[in-house]
Amino acid sequence: MTDPVSVRPRPASDITEWDLDADVVIAGYGIAGVTAAIEAAREGADVLVLERTGGWGGAAALAGGFVYLGGGTPLQKACGFDDSAENMKAFMTAALGPGVDEAKIADYCEHSVAHYHWLVDCGVTFKESFWGEPGWEPPFDDGLMYSGGENSAPFHTVATPAPRGHVPQMSDKRTGEKGGGYMLMEPLVHTAEKLGVRAEYDMRVETLVTDADGRVVGVITRRYGRELAIRARRGVVLAMGSFAYNQQMVEAFAPRLIGRPGASIEEHDGRAILMGQALGAAVAHMDATEVAFVADPQHLVRGILVNGRGQRYVPEDTYPGRIGQLTLLQNDNEAYLIIDEQAYEAGAAATSATPFMQQLQPKWVAETVDELEAEMGLPTGALVSTVEVYNRHAAEGSDPLLGKKPEWVTPIGTPVAALDLRGHTMGFTLGGLRTTLDSEVLHVSGAPIPGLYAAGRCTSGVCAWGYASGTSLGDGSFYGRRAGIAAARNPA
Amino acid sequence: MTDPVSVRPRPASDITEWDLDADVVIAGYGIAGVTAAIEAAREGADVLVLERTGGWGGAAALAGGFVYLGGGTPLQKACGFDDSAENMKAFMTAALGPGVDEAKIADYCEHSVAHYHWLVDCGVTFKESFWGEPGWEPPFDDGLMYSGGENSAPFHTVATPAPRGHVPQMSDKRTGEKGGGYMLMEPLVHTAEKLGVRAEYDMRVETLVTDADGRVVGVITRRYGRELAIRARRGVVLAMGSFAYNQQMVEAFAPRLIGRPGASIEEHDGRAILMGQALGAAVAHMDATEVAFVADPQHLVRGILVNGRGQRYVPEDTYPGRIGQLTLLQNDNEAYLIIDEQAYEAGAAATSATPFMQQLQPKWVAETVDELEAEMGLPTGALVSTVEVYNRHAAEGSDPLLGKKPEWVTPIGTPVAALDLRGHTMGFTLGGLRTTLDSEVLHVSGAPIPGLYAAGRCTSGVCAWGYASGTSLGDGSFYGRRAGIAAARNPA
Repeated sequence: MTDPVSVRPRPASDITEWDLDADVVIAGYGIAGVTAAIEAAREGADVLVLERTGGWGGAAALAGGFVYLGGGTPLQKACGFDDSAENMKAFMTAALGPGVDEAKIADYCEHSVAHYHWLVDCGVTFKESFWGEPGWEPPFDDGLMYSGGENSAPFHTVATPAPRGHVPQMSDKRTGEKGGGYMLMEPLVHTAEKLGVRAEYDMRVETLVTDADGRVVGVITRRYGRELAIRARRGVVLAMGSFAYNQQMVEAFAPRLIGRPGASIEEHDGRAILMGQALGAAVAHMDATEVAFVADPQHLVRGILVNGRGQRYVPEDTYPGRIGQLTLLQNDNEAYLIIDEQAYEAGAAATSATPFMQQLQPKWVAETVDELEAEMGLPTGALVSTVEVYNRHAAEGSDPLLGKKPEWVTPIGTPVAALDLRGHTMGFTLGGLRTTLDSEVLHVSGAPIPGLYAAGRCTSGVCAWGYASGTSLGDGSFYGRRAGIAAARNPA
Repeated sequence: MTDPVSVRPRPASDITEWDLDADVVIAGYGIAGVTAAIEAAREGADVLVLERTGGWGGAAALAGGFVYLGGGTPLQKACGFDDSAENMKAFMTAALGPGVDEAKIADYCEHSVAHYHWLVDCGVTFKESFWGEPGWEPPFDDGLMYSGGENSAPFHTVATPAPRGHVPQMSDKRTGEKGGGYMLMEPLVHTAEKLGVRAEYDMRVETLVTDADGRVVGVITRRYGRELAIRARRGVVLAMGSFAYNQQMVEAFAPRLIGRPGASIEEHDGRAILMGQALGAAVAHMDATEVAFVADPQHLVRGILVNGRGQRYVPEDTYPGRIGQLTLLQNDNEAYLIIDEQAYEAGAAATSATPFMQQLQPKWVAETVDELEAEMGLPTGALVSTVEVYNRHAAEGSDPLLGKKPEWVTPIGTPVAALDLRGHTMGFTLGGLRTTLDSEVLHVSGAPIPGLYAAGRCTSGVCAWGYASGTSLGDGSFYGRRAGIAAARNPA
């Protein structure tokens, strides 16, 4: 962890003059930063956001825009879905673990409807329409979608299925202008600006400043090579993103992600985590990762996915991020989709109606599964028996092995092909600073570090191992707000 | 992480009087502590070991005693095995990752033969005989055994197989008196005592003491409720074991191990890690775990192991700790051994010649695999097809799916049974403080923390995710020595 500019805290006594000051100083102008800024300003604080790049947005503005919300939001109701905080909690506990922070999950679920209203009040628009096709995100401007496998095995037996992926209404994706993440960030930033939140760009936050009692009272930043000391009278909020682009941290904590960062930005260098650790901050779930799976879900649901031994390991109709996790973390990153010609064509046709989904071509094509197996170099019988068992039950419309929904269960016919999906994963890290429900950063002693708050992907949020799309913008915005409130209320 | 006695460092300026002092103070009298003590004393330091329990030994004295050594040790040569540092490095890199500390592995392998001689010079005895039967450890007093799957798929193709599990000669296990771990610790403790190493027992190390420059200059301990301040003129060595018994840390980092600690002792509460983190120490691979699999390897090799879907997932003749890891971490802790009557009896007979191996009874028995599958409640065809594919190749003496060695490949006949091995795992944690090759504890800034050294399972050693038996006593003793040397040479 060679560090040319130290992450060690700087003593306030070394600061002869503060270059800037504010009640609440927020490092990072992504989803956690902007929500913290809004709430801190509403609490009456003078707020300054420091952003490393030339503009607001962070990874959030580039994201699909899912916010994981539920418990019976107006959008869920408008689309005809029942949900409750308890039901949402049951799903999240099962799907995002093992080892979830139960208090955080309960808190998040209990206040999810209120958080929906808060976002809407800030100007975020959710179109009252549900997208039910297999896919990563709605291709048009629909507002609601399943985004974590809630309606798939095994989670549909744990909790009543309800879609919770809430997507801010975007312009048509075919125009390519503004995605859901941008449409989330834009009204929030406007809200912050109207509240008088100041922002400084091209400011790299490098170090925390602490007083003699160990309280965080500011940050040291760098802009065009010049160092600036910035005073935070009430508190500092770290909202600087994940460590997906810190190679040494990825090697030390999430090595299966080496060389495959995704859905993240290069500014996600883990520095906020290191700055916190330098003060004795606790971390949690540093191995946890979101894992995207690069394949068209419209094809996945119509075939069977097998690992390097020709065995099925995941219901193909679940959340593709779960497929990515199980592939990378439990099946040596080896996956093949076995699909017959008719199903492949049907998948391609379904996708052709939606923009921007890349079509993967089969690598092997054969007249029989026997031939396909041989072409793929699998042991004799390995794939044939997998297909036989699948087809035997599919003929009756069921999938007792993995519980794929009957609507997608069809015997695999001929000619048949295999898509080579080895190495088709990438992702970002989910572990980080351990925080309270008020987004205070916890010291390893169990007590909060005075004056230090954090939210977003530099913290360990609602995900411990599993993932659902929308939980990052979800806990980032939810606990970003908490951070802003707590920092603003901290006595100066 | 509620902490009634804070893990925060205490300023030296608060200490009015030191109760005890030494050049090098070592916290913990297990394998890392004793080897640090010996080397520090040999460097001329006045050494004091502080042990929480009433006697020396730690988890090491209760362990089987494997020390992972290779590269061509005299014991390997005497037993007829070739090995080299490069070969050992290739195996360890493949088997103990992903994400191993490559510099540490290279260092460990390069000096492994010298470390063997060092142990022997301290009075540790290795009997020149090889135990080649499937099992966890030699049941008698043989000195050498495969202990990491070196001669099994897939690792036997990565490096030339060589056994590296070196077991100190013990009295016959049937007498039950002294195991390999005890026979390792005893001569080492005697060596330390002869060198004048002092030890204080019933001393719980609670906090580090730092001077105004941040250098570690002592520890605060507690004995029978009384607090003592102990000065370390040259350095403090943390050798306090894993965090397997710290429930909150296990939940935060290795949640699949919740409720199943094993091969560990209750003193392994993670405190050394927290004390280091409170000074800004970096940690690594906190999710990594050793995982034991409670089943007789003599049975495992003679059957096929299937997961909850009836699929094989591991060559049954590999290191049982690898079976444990793949079962717990990648197959939902679900495993069944499918074995025919003849093979079960043969396994039982093989085991009856060795003491203390518990015999597991079949849960289901049937005349055919079809019936067995139905009794187990598996989907029709799931197990039948697995056995058919296995038997088809076994008839030709091969296992192309997983590469079980031909000597153990025999078609599964009838009558046939299944052993229920769900939940048959337990283990300990492998993650911890990040250290240099000189066992200095690294700050997250990348620089060593002055005066602080660590070794053993409170550090991240040669294992990143995988495991081999002997690597804990191996890197504990190897880097314990380095810690003792470095602390003793640190200027007072």
